[in-house]
Amino acid sequence: MKKAVTLGEALLRLTPPGRNRLIGSNMFEVIYGGSEVNVAVALSQFGIDTSLITRLPDHDLGDAFIYKLREFGVDTSHIARGGERIGLYFLEAGYSVRPSKVIYDRKHSAMAEAKIEEFDLDAIFAGRDLFHVSGITLGISEQAFQLARTFMRRAKEKGLKVSFDFNYRSKLWSVEAAREKFEQILEYVDIAFAGHLDFTNILGIKPDKPLEERDILDYYRDLYSKVQKMYNFEWIVSSIRNVESASKNQYQGIIWNGEQLYQSKSYTIDIIDRVGTGDAFTAGFLYAYLTNKDDEYKVQFAAASAALKHTIPGDMLVATAAQVENLFQSGSFQVQR
Amino acid sequence: MKKAVTLGEALLRLTPPGRNRLIGSNMFEVIYGGSEVNVAVALSQFGIDTSLITRLPDHDLGDAFIYKLREFGVDTSHIARGGERIGLYFLEAGYSVRPSKVIYDRKHSAMAEAKIEEFDLDAIFAGRDLFHVSGITLGISEQAFQLARTFMRRAKEKGLKVSFDFNYRSKLWSVEAAREKFEQILEYVDIAFAGHLDFTNILGIKPDKPLEERDILDYYRDLYSKVQKMYNFEWIVSSIRNVESASKNQYQGIIWNGEQLYQSKSYTIDIIDRVGTGDAFTAGFLYAYLTNKDDEYKVQFAAASAALKHTIPGDMLVATAAQVENLFQSGSFQVQR
Amino acid sequence: MKKAVTLGEALLRLTPPGRNRLIGSNMFEVIYGGSEVNVAVALSQFGIDTSLITRLPDHDLGDAFIYKLREFGVDTSHIARGGERIGLYFLEAGYSVRPSKVIYDRKHSAMAEAKIEEFDLDAIFAGRDLFHVSGITLGISEQAFQLARTFMRRAKEKGLKVSFDFNYRSKLWSVEAAREKFEQILEYVDIAFAGHLDFTNILGIKPDKPLEERDILDYYRDLYSKVQKMYNFEWIVSSIRNVESASKNQYQGIIWNGEQLYQSKSYTIDIIDRVGTGDAFTAGFLYAYLTNKDDEYKVQFAAASAALKHTIPGDMLVATAAQVENLFQSGSFQVQR
Amino acid sequence: MKKAVTLGEALLRLTPPGRNRLIGSNMFEVIYGGSEVNVAVALSQFGIDTSLITRLPDHDLGDAFIYKLREFGVDTSHIARGGERIGLYFLEAGYSVRPSKVIYDRKHSAMAEAKIEEFDLDAIFAGRDLFHVSGITLGISEQAFQLARTFMRRAKEKGLKVSFDFNYRSKLWSVEAAREKFEQILEYVDIAFAGHLDFTNILGIKPDKPLEERDILDYYRDLYSKVQKMYNFEWIVSSIRNVESASKNQYQGIIWNGEQLYQSKSYTIDIIDRVGTGDAFTAGFLYAYLTNKDDEYKVQFAAASAALKHTIPGDMLVATAAQVENLFQSGSFQVQR
Amino acid sequence: MKKAVTLGEALLRLTPPGRNRLIGSNMFEVIYGGSEVNVAVALSQFGIDTSLITRLPDHDLGDAFIYKLREFGVDTSHIARGGERIGLYFLEAGYSVRPSKVIYDRKHSAMAEAKIEEFDLDAIFAGRDLFHVSGITLGISEQAFQLARTFMRRAKEKGLKVSFDFNYRSKLWSVEAAREKFEQILEYVDIAFAGHLDFTNILGIKPDKPLEERDILDYYRDLYSKVQKMYNFEWIVSSIRNVESASKNQYQGIIWNGEQLYQSKSYTIDIIDRVGTGDAFTAGFLYAYLTNKDDEYKVQFAAASAALKHTIPGDMLVATAAQVENLFQSGSFQVQR
Amino acid sequence: MKKAVTLGEALLRLTPPGRNRLIGSNMFEVIYGGSEVNVAVALSQFGIDTSLITRLPDHDLGDAFIYKLREFGVDTSHIARGGERIGLYFLEAGYSVRPSKVIYDRKHSAMAEAKIEEFDLDAIFAGRDLFHVSGITLGISEQAFQLARTFMRRAKEKGLKVSFDFNYRSKLWSVEAAREKFEQILEYVDIAFAGHLDFTNILGIKPDKPLEERDILDYYRDLYSKVQKMYNFEWIVSSIRNVESASKNQYQGIIWNGEQLYQSKSYTIDIIDRVGTGDAFTAGFLYAYLTNKDDEYKVQFAAASAALKHTIPGDMLVATAAQVENLFQSGSFQVQR
Repeated sequence: MKKAVTLGEALLRLTPPGRNRLIGSNMFEVIYGGSEVNVAVALSQFGIDTSLITRLPDHDLGDAFIYKLREFGVDTSHIARGGERIGLYFLEAGYSVRPSKVIYDRKHSAMAEAKIEEFDLDAIFAGRDLFHVSGITLGISEQAFQLARTFMRRAKEKGLKVSFDFNYRSKLWSVEAAREKFEQILEYVDIAFAGHLDFTNILGIKPDKPLEERDILDYYRDLYSKVQKMYNFEWIVSSIRNVESASKNQYQGIIWNGEQLYQSKSYTIDIIDRVGTGDAFTAGFLYAYLTNKDDEYKVQFAAASAALKHTIPGDMLVATAAQVENLFQSGSFQVQR
Repeated sequence: MKKAVTLGEALLRLTPPGRNRLIGSNMFEVIYGGSEVNVAVALSQFGIDTSLITRLPDHDLGDAFIYKLREFGVDTSHIARGGERIGLYFLEAGYSVRPSKVIYDRKHSAMAEAKIEEFDLDAIFAGRDLFHVSGITLGISEQAFQLARTFMRRAKEKGLKVSFDFNYRSKLWSVEAAREKFEQILEYVDIAFAGHLDFTNILGIKPDKPLEERDILDYYRDLYSKVQKMYNFEWIVSSIRNVESASKNQYQGIIWNGEQLYQSKSYTIDIIDRVGTGDAFTAGFLYAYLTNKDDEYKVQFAAASAALKHTIPGDMLVATAAQVENLFQSGSFQVQR
Repeated sequence: MKKAVTLGEALLRLTPPGRNRLIGSNMFEVIYGGSEVNVAVALSQFGIDTSLITRLPDHDLGDAFIYKLREFGVDTSHIARGGERIGLYFLEAGYSVRPSKVIYDRKHSAMAEAKIEEFDLDAIFAGRDLFHVSGITLGISEQAFQLARTFMRRAKEKGLKVSFDFNYRSKLWSVEAAREKFEQILEYVDIAFAGHLDFTNILGIKPDKPLEERDILDYYRDLYSKVQKMYNFEWIVSSIRNVESASKNQYQGIIWNGEQLYQSKSYTIDIIDRVGTGDAFTAGFLYAYLTNKDDEYKVQFAAASAALKHTIPGDMLVATAAQVENLFQSGSFQVQR
Repeated sequence: MKKAVTLGEALLRLTPPGRNRLIGSNMFEVIYGGSEVNVAVALSQFGIDTSLITRLPDHDLGDAFIYKLREFGVDTSHIARGGERIGLYFLEAGYSVRPSKVIYDRKHSAMAEAKIEEFDLDAIFAGRDLFHVSGITLGISEQAFQLARTFMRRAKEKGLKVSFDFNYRSKLWSVEAAREKFEQILEYVDIAFAGHLDFTNILGIKPDKPLEERDILDYYRDLYSKVQKMYNFEWIVSSIRNVESASKNQYQGIIWNGEQLYQSKSYTIDIIDRVGTGDAFTAGFLYAYLTNKDDEYKVQFAAASAALKHTIPGDMLVATAAQVENLFQSGSFQVQR
Repeated sequence: MKKAVTLGEALLRLTPPGRNRLIGSNMFEVIYGGSEVNVAVALSQFGIDTSLITRLPDHDLGDAFIYKLREFGVDTSHIARGGERIGLYFLEAGYSVRPSKVIYDRKHSAMAEAKIEEFDLDAIFAGRDLFHVSGITLGISEQAFQLARTFMRRAKEKGLKVSFDFNYRSKLWSVEAAREKFEQILEYVDIAFAGHLDFTNILGIKPDKPLEERDILDYYRDLYSKVQKMYNFEWIVSSIRNVESASKNQYQGIIWNGEQLYQSKSYTIDIIDRVGTGDAFTAGFLYAYLTNKDDEYKVQFAAASAALKHTIPGDMLVATAAQVENLFQSGSFQVQR
Repeated sequence: MKKAVTLGEALLRLTPPGRNRLIGSNMFEVIYGGSEVNVAVALSQFGIDTSLITRLPDHDLGDAFIYKLREFGVDTSHIARGGERIGLYFLEAGYSVRPSKVIYDRKHSAMAEAKIEEFDLDAIFAGRDLFHVSGITLGISEQAFQLARTFMRRAKEKGLKVSFDFNYRSKLWSVEAAREKFEQILEYVDIAFAGHLDFTNILGIKPDKPLEERDILDYYRDLYSKVQKMYNFEWIVSSIRNVESASKNQYQGIIWNGEQLYQSKSYTIDIIDRVGTGDAFTAGFLYAYLTNKDDEYKVQFAAASAALKHTIPGDMLVATAAQVENLFQSGSFQVQR
């Protein structure tokens, strides 16, 4: 069985329960997450031995995060302890015509101030087959960017596959800032998770004709061919999301192996928790990739992971591979009794 | 006013609140139910004096169940006390693309080990007009099967109408095991609650053409005629459910009086709690039957009972007959203020 | 910046959480509201200095209501203290095919027994530009009606604009009783909030042809012209609601400036809390009116206020003007992160 | 087995959970109670068939109260339906140096406006051995006083024992008002529940020396002898409570059979819910009285009922006679496992 | 009526409910506080017009804090908006043998980065009689220290009384760091709130003999005389706390007017929430001081404010002056009904 | 660092929150525990690598238990999967004069039906230094007894220390049944956890004089000497508990190394959760034993572990060794801030 390692910030989410507004809430749900954390948690439950690399303060809340990661079977033995705070964000969960809102409070976090000397890269990469990181880690601080780039370079040198999720967040940094950093690391990437707007707006790649004027699959084939010429990714992995309301979306996966495009089923989903669905998609693809499933299975498993995540409270996909398979293979929503 | 008696297992349901998964839940909702319990509770609220026959351990949790039954006006005076445990099940409530899941923990229950000597059948049936039991009670143990068969036979002998809900559960027993038991009791049945698959898969009755190839009403007329020839039921009562997602269904009732088929309105329902909707349907029909409503009313009341139950948390239909009537007669969903 | 004053009953709402039924609930959510209270709260958050005139008992629960009003920035300095009780209502929140139900318990409230001598009208109206009251206040007691009429008359005399929301409640009084009171105050009204049924059923105005037989906009133009001839309102403000189920509605605003009809976007809304949506609509219009927005903006802002309210728990619209604007101007329901 | 009947107001208690203050609470616990209701509930659980006579509005909240009474086995068949509201009170639960506070909102309740014609006294008293009522029922309205007096007189005429708990509440009426009513009904009373201050302050009976100056038992013997001479009660039943803090009390029962004084164990109690402890004491005594227990048992059972109630959330004593017995007979507080 | 102004950081407290540990908690109570915030809130409820000076980010959570302050009647009109985060702390509430634990996460807060130019001191001090600040504000950043010193100096110049609570926190700064700052501002102080260890450990004042070797009142007279000689405070205000367990304390106030020592009643308190009790004590004293109560009343009111706060969930004393008075004047803990 | 292994049943506890009674509860807290589970969890948190041997059904609830164990760092790699149910118990938490009550529902559990072939004893014991089991495991079934005896014998053969906690439960089996089994395994035991009544009532050892007639320490020395002569235990470890009420106990540890008796501090504890305190005591001793602490430390650490557990909700001691040390070394209950 192949093994994975992810690098990223452990984030605490605070959310008013019952879709209440922040104003007037006297309780917050405490939800553990972070993009790469979510990927590690899902992979571990799918049966892939996955180590999370992060940095956490040496206090009870840092301990609590490690307890949570262990609960889901994530290998926490390489987590550095130090720094003063855990990154936080406040999420007000939207519904129907009211969009969800995020307030970030993640500056000066333990992870944003992590130093490369705190990690033993040889030990971390020993026996691992894949390294995953997302654009968020590149954006949280210059120090984190340097750290992530070093990890990517060393992973590549040691023969691991490198997986990268663009994960652009407009409240975190500008398109220009993201581009400048992304251009320094894309050479290491084997598997790229990105939406079409990431390619056009951040990397500045221009498809022959805009999406509105042509067949959607032709659009993607054209765009991805252009991307591949420039960056030579092994896989480009995307999703298409139609946001009918804050609590109802249509969702579909689309993947490109350099030659061919695969589409998943399209799901119409009533949403319990929108956060972490992209990470579940990523983990779903990586699981299928690491277990050498065929390409049709890859896109179906990835999309079903994401679809299922929309119905699970919290940032993390709490599910086994069998449950994900059941969604795209059986398609029945009857009570299982 | 006519009176009813039901026989069945009192079941405790434990469910993570907020549609959470079992994994990670630190609270369970405690919900009292069981198929025949739910029928008894709904009938009592509709104004039909109904006695529940079951067996409960002689400890505080057994007492708690009796308190709950009394709350809804069920006659608990014939309940036997003894045995060691109450049957349980854990239900993880699904939503959207995630189906609900059940883990049964009902073996060795007080009811599964009940003996006929613990019940005074003469007293139990005195003054009662209808006896109701479901296939679940036949399936929980050999002892329970013998108990139920004796109750059915004696009820029939004493001139009560006998009502039977097939209620097949694949996690409880196989189709073959169910058939073997059902064939021993169907002779006593006046009113049969069953889906078309119960007739075709369990009883092996073959309609002339499959459902897909013909008009749905013709299909039912054909199937029910065949069933009636074999078993001579007074009424066959069914529902048609289209499972759009785990939280959205279409639902319609369909009843057959041996000659004619009646269809109810079809309801599109966003679901709060799917469990017990079949029992509400059963109770709705039996109420209309016992109060001698016309056949159109019977099917409308039954379907509206079931539809309403989908929107009420817990296993039980908490509603009066007037509330059910209001649903199929007014059809307005405005705030009543 | 213009300033407003509203007069009305402060009402406590008690609601079983989780869309449970009253029967069996061991907790009630405590929600502060009342039609004019809700208008005052929304206006205050939109930045309009608004004073609420009401009467509250001089005990801890009366204090608690004042704390709540202050929280939202409402001017509470003219509230009279006295009387014995706060008006209550119990609301069982419906869902899907189950309508919401209200039990009023508001008789003998502090406000219903308020006397005109308890209020210093000169101080209350000083510096204010608009007075708002609803039909509910006219209906809760003869004393409250006299109080409201005096307020309306004096407001008019002092040059304030007078805004009136018909807000007919069938559990509060009959159509005849409402008509008799309404006819005594409509002469003071500049801005009338009312549905078309309020005009036809209560005031007895007959459109040329019924709604079913003609174009809806023509119907409204015809009806409003007739209304205007009789009552000479500056503005008639209405909403059109299609009640698909207790938890799904379509909603649209429609306003008439005496010459022209404006329609807002139509919203399809999954509902969290239906109560107070009309008050949010009223506040939305009044905000746009008092800040001299153009007529198109008026109807859009009013409808978006109401639409947004459906997704916010409680009676009150907890939102700023910017959030409302965002709904009708951006139209995106993506997570804001 | 002897049977009882009680007359009194069904009261809904609303309490902020977690010992929070009313101000700022967004949830209230919903607790069913009322002095005579509590007595009926405890007696029913002790195995005494008890009927509650009250009046409840004919709406869902009235139904909900009946469901709750049935849950505990109380006979609800003679409850009148009508009126507009259920009496309420808001209780802020104190702790340590912060006393509990009550806001009554019970005026104009269904019970306060009950008429004697709504009750069939022959049916109500048929087969009953004891009638119980408290001073609260006499104080809620003139109409309720007349009703209660009629019930007491008729009960006496029909040979029932009449039990009366003084239960003076200073927020309900003055000492003078209470005296005037009490003097009209004490002639019917066989069993009087009252504290020594009720005798001295309300009835004006003067012991030879004040409590501070003498032995407490002598004081009680002297006082009770004087009371008995005037009113000829069969039993005088009292408790002695030392209020160390709002959440810690010492509690002891003391009863007088006309000749002899019996004292119970004294309990030091950390309090979960103080309300209803007097009613539990009353029910405890009446249970022992109606089952002909010896006098020592009577006082011990009564005091243990009261002591236990302090540790049970809500107004009602949720306990069987065996649990109460266990408290005064075993005296062990170890886990029972 | 005199008016006050306080300067300090608005802090959000996050606490696992039910005295749970941080590890494993999936909910946090959201509690608004901060030392000077708590003083402002209590003073406002006591009827003293009090303005809070702080700085809050211009986002929804900043708004939420302002809503909360307005709820309690605090004047928020001079609060600066800006910065990126609100200071937080995680409090694990102890019980019995388990002490409470605090994790601070307040660095880089909006208030820690406030600049003097953001405040209009003339407007802020206009019409105010007293300025209050605590040592915490001096310790959160160099910038905050400079801000606070400027406020103190200017308040003094403008003739306000200056009140200062030492409030030393060992997790915030060292004794040496505190001393260095304190020495720069004590010249402005009229009223000093401090424990005896603050004087001996931080300021280095040595009483003639240690506390253990002499009468406690003599010790305090001696120590305070020495302090007064050096700093010339008008009032020294202290409390004596005996920590029997994390949930049981004895508490007493002790004040010194330069000549005479006053002691309050001593309270034995079972604790619901220990945080903010010192702030309640401060506010209690300042209320009595600003309303010119006599010295005995001052110490009793201050101590009763603090005692009461121990029984109220959250950081803030939710109570009126009448409730505080009731505690030290009546001394009864009976239910008030 | 030494390593441990424990064998025992994983038990799910269901408890009404808020110290409510089972009757009427609509929520249960879900608490993971079991005597040896609790020991494993505490040891793991103290830093001792500990493996739990048990058997869990292969369904989501079995998975959930494993997630919980992993959360606390327990090695779950040797847990067998199979069987049909997890043992349950319902605990009604007592308070003050109301004792806690347990209803067991653990028969037929996966663990009770475990077979020795399901476990690889060589792998399980490899590298382990200590094996721990309790009398409960011996009592749940004959099969479990045989399993445990085999584990004890093999552990002994492989040179592990064997630790045994008598843990007698009267609702599980009789004194006679326990004796018969205990006598078959005591030869393997090195460390015995037992109360003095276990020795006198179960093993039938008679001290020279009863406890009441002599000095308590002499009593223990005498008793333990006699025990040691018969069973040659290396350590006898006991606690002395004085049950003042269901929520207030005094607690002290007492240990005997074959020659000398050590007593810990005595703690007076207000109890949050009584369950698992004995297991915390056991784990505390074993931690100190395995890390070669001196004997005084052993008894203090053990008693402090137990004392602390009383204040932590759930069955498990959620604490690090440092937190336990802090309790017996500092003795301060002040807020740590």
